Amino acid sequence: MANVDLTVAAVFKKFRATQGVSQEELAFKAKIHRTYVSQLERGLKSVTLKTLLEITNALGIELMQFMQAVDDEMKKA
Amino acid sequence: MANVDLTVAAVFKKFRATQGVSQEELAFKAKIHRTYVSQLERGLKSVTLKTLLEITNALGIELMQFMQAVDDEMKKA
Repeated sequence: MANVDLTVAAVFKKFRATQGVSQEELAFKAKIHRTYVSQLERGLKSVTLKTLLEITNALGIELMQFMQAVDDEMKKA
Repeated sequence: MANVDLTVAAVFKKFRATQGVSQEELAFKAKIHRTYVSQLERGLKSVTLKTLLEITNALGIELMQFMQAVDDEMKKA
């Protein structure tokens, strides 16, 4: 099975880049620590659904849009 | 915003009942503690995507099927 945390990391970085939001901005908007954003983007932490929802809200994307991208990546792997 | 952990709890219980799996069986199959299953079903913990994937595998359902049910419930609330 593909490592879900590494997949989330890649999808996360992609969406943040597409939305043109820095790690600092995202951390501020999602009310999480910038270090935590960095850890998520390196696949070092497993994100909770609660935090993921705060992140997708901060990025202005739908939770399901994020999850679909994760699922697509995992099925490719 | 709807409380995602309470929504996950409700969806979780629903799928476990539909699949006819006890908390004990699920805990064993997903390699998590039975107490943790119980806490998730009461909305006391926020599940990580990694654990959620182990749980959906153990229940024999797709991650996206679970997530879609969570999303539907949150939009209703």
